[in-house]
Amino acid sequence: MKNMEPKDITAECLCIGDELLIGQVLNTNAAWMGRELGLAGIRTALGRVIGDDQATIVEALRTASTDIVLITGGLGPTKDDVTKRALCEFFATGLVRNAGVEQRIIGLFTRLGGDARRVKQADLAQAMLPECCEVLPNLLGTASGMWFEREGRVFVSLPGVPYEMQALVRDQVLPKLRERFRPPAIIHRTVRTTGLGETMLAERLAHWEAGLAKQGIKLAYLPAPGEVKLRLSLYAAGNPQAARALVDREAMALYRIVPELIYGEGAQELQEVIGGLLKQSGQTLALAESCTGGYLSHMVTSVAGSSAYYIGGVVSYANAVKMEELGIPSDMLELNGAVSAPVAERMAIGVRGALKSDWAVATTGIAGPDGGTPEKPVGTVWIAVAGPQGVVSEKGVFMGSRDLVIRRASMAALNMLRKQLVAGSAASA
Amino acid sequence: MKNMEPKDITAECLCIGDELLIGQVLNTNAAWMGRELGLAGIRTALGRVIGDDQATIVEALRTASTDIVLITGGLGPTKDDVTKRALCEFFATGLVRNAGVEQRIIGLFTRLGGDARRVKQADLAQAMLPECCEVLPNLLGTASGMWFEREGRVFVSLPGVPYEMQALVRDQVLPKLRERFRPPAIIHRTVRTTGLGETMLAERLAHWEAGLAKQGIKLAYLPAPGEVKLRLSLYAAGNPQAARALVDREAMALYRIVPELIYGEGAQELQEVIGGLLKQSGQTLALAESCTGGYLSHMVTSVAGSSAYYIGGVVSYANAVKMEELGIPSDMLELNGAVSAPVAERMAIGVRGALKSDWAVATTGIAGPDGGTPEKPVGTVWIAVAGPQGVVSEKGVFMGSRDLVIRRASMAALNMLRKQLVAGSAASA
Repeated sequence: MKNMEPKDITAECLCIGDELLIGQVLNTNAAWMGRELGLAGIRTALGRVIGDDQATIVEALRTASTDIVLITGGLGPTKDDVTKRALCEFFATGLVRNAGVEQRIIGLFTRLGGDARRVKQADLAQAMLPECCEVLPNLLGTASGMWFEREGRVFVSLPGVPYEMQALVRDQVLPKLRERFRPPAIIHRTVRTTGLGETMLAERLAHWEAGLAKQGIKLAYLPAPGEVKLRLSLYAAGNPQAARALVDREAMALYRIVPELIYGEGAQELQEVIGGLLKQSGQTLALAESCTGGYLSHMVTSVAGSSAYYIGGVVSYANAVKMEELGIPSDMLELNGAVSAPVAERMAIGVRGALKSDWAVATTGIAGPDGGTPEKPVGTVWIAVAGPQGVVSEKGVFMGSRDLVIRRASMAALNMLRKQLVAGSAASA
Repeated sequence: MKNMEPKDITAECLCIGDELLIGQVLNTNAAWMGRELGLAGIRTALGRVIGDDQATIVEALRTASTDIVLITGGLGPTKDDVTKRALCEFFATGLVRNAGVEQRIIGLFTRLGGDARRVKQADLAQAMLPECCEVLPNLLGTASGMWFEREGRVFVSLPGVPYEMQALVRDQVLPKLRERFRPPAIIHRTVRTTGLGETMLAERLAHWEAGLAKQGIKLAYLPAPGEVKLRLSLYAAGNPQAARALVDREAMALYRIVPELIYGEGAQELQEVIGGLLKQSGQTLALAESCTGGYLSHMVTSVAGSSAYYIGGVVSYANAVKMEELGIPSDMLELNGAVSAPVAERMAIGVRGALKSDWAVATTGIAGPDGGTPEKPVGTVWIAVAGPQGVVSEKGVFMGSRDLVIRRASMAALNMLRKQLVAGSAASA
């Protein structure tokens, strides 16, 4: 990554808090800061999490090696000021009362309906700040941001409360960092794929990927259950328009190489893409689930406004439900078994008829951990899509735990529906 | 925490991956490992996140200062083996083909219906492992765990895929660490509650909680959507029996203070508790979901073997489905609205009759973000449970995003069923 950067400005996210180390709180601050720094053209080279201990904090500051060190946490009124004392020790300075901050704390307190004379000592102590730092006013809380410089490095201490930290970083820290370091702009584009695992996708893209490096474009594979996101990044050395054009051209090439695998971009979820296609065509959807057990329906209904196109579904866990609610003939179940193409197709046709929808998706398979056979191992799932043009079905064998089989089969089912919707609208167009 | 530990065994979580540094992926592995290490009596003293770069990884290994270093990530087939090369450099060893691992990779591939002769080179490369390490077989994927020892420190390299890493840590790494370091035994007991938020629960328990500290018992509130886990921890300095008795006594006190909120203990999920109760009584369950949109069914079917008692369900998103599949009279919908006690109760009775189950649960509400009214704000959900003794219903108003309303309403629905099942078995006993 280094070599693609005209000017490599590095940062560390130093997060302080025992609650992070013992896993009681998930470290979302580091992820958020890494994202914001990256978008600003600053490379996060290191993330550290340490406990609420003065000596530990001083040692961490002493061993910092990046241009920028963003410190979060350890400033709350109950934290016993350990971070501030560590900062004073490291920068060989002392705490002084900041009148402006003290007034803001009292103001904050009285605005909340409190009596100014009864402001807690712990809160007033938040107005005691290291003498040598530049104070960054925190408009949302009592813990101020602190900007220090030493030997060409910038250290910024921030509160751990996410929305307070985020406001300080966006409104004050990033503008000051841009002015101080003049980082290059960076262009990002994320293309979302499903239907192929990371390894096989990487093989399909090997040639294209090789060409990216020459242009300084970085490719990141970001796998999640049932999908792989492809993130293109390029530092725009002085010319953002040209960089954007370069990234867009390679994204377009990607659409030519694996058109059938791409379902959307950026933050767009597969179920949102399907919702959009159904709204566009004014069509409706119904579901019949066996092995996915309601998860497919949950994915569809996780989209706000899905009631506009989703009529409902049947979870036919017992064969009796398959027969009575979906009209599967008992001899079909005996002849082929519940996990078969005919049953999957009949489930889709059955629920489409019963719920009077334009489209229907059905799943039947073995989620595991038990119930597998040599012919039908755990992870075997038949998926059927019924629509105005008829019914199609496909078999998939999905890896992993019961939960992963359910998630991956649901993603595959939605993607199969997506393809049919696209083909359908193409046919009707 | 230190002073409580007779013997302070320290660990570092070293997570490798640019996707973590740039904030594209949230570092859940570090939190999970910190939690598991703490439960095993090992103190996580440092967490580091570094990029996919050989020199950086070697430098991180060189500067490690804890007894144990758990390394995750950088092993995927597209990761270009950078972590393995760094490990070889640091431990001055080379890669050798591991026949056992190669066979398992081929087996994994062929089980998925592939042709053994066409196993990808990238996958086979996963069988090339450092000569000086002890290989920890990964039964869920192709990247093996690796155990190294050097100058009294243990280094363990693990795949970054959470469920693969977790299985390796639980089944192989923690047992070996216990044997190697003999950490002090910690007595834990986790009581799981639902029905009250963290703050209000803390108020109910304030007096009891105050008494814990005196006995050296630590209490952790572990909130999750719709529930709060209470974890009691005590270091068993030499006398595990006495410590166990102390913790059990306080847990029993807890059962006396909030009996109605406790549904289970330890790893037991609410849906597993319900599965156990249904199996015990040989009874069956059906579901009718509107606002929960299939998530309730997903929770029930997330339990392996749930087909023994779960017959199936109907997701009645459109009113037409409520009428035709569940027999709700249209005038009832017009008179009371879909989000009402009569409709919820009729949905439960309807699905219980249609699917011929002993018990049925129904949900109807407003998940949001739109669709709320002054009388029925977003988050309003009616839940009904129908059983051999008749039908009952309750209204809940759940806070948060659409996703949180769905999860919290589903938890509340399962808990209402649990209470009915317990009452039912008490009545029939």
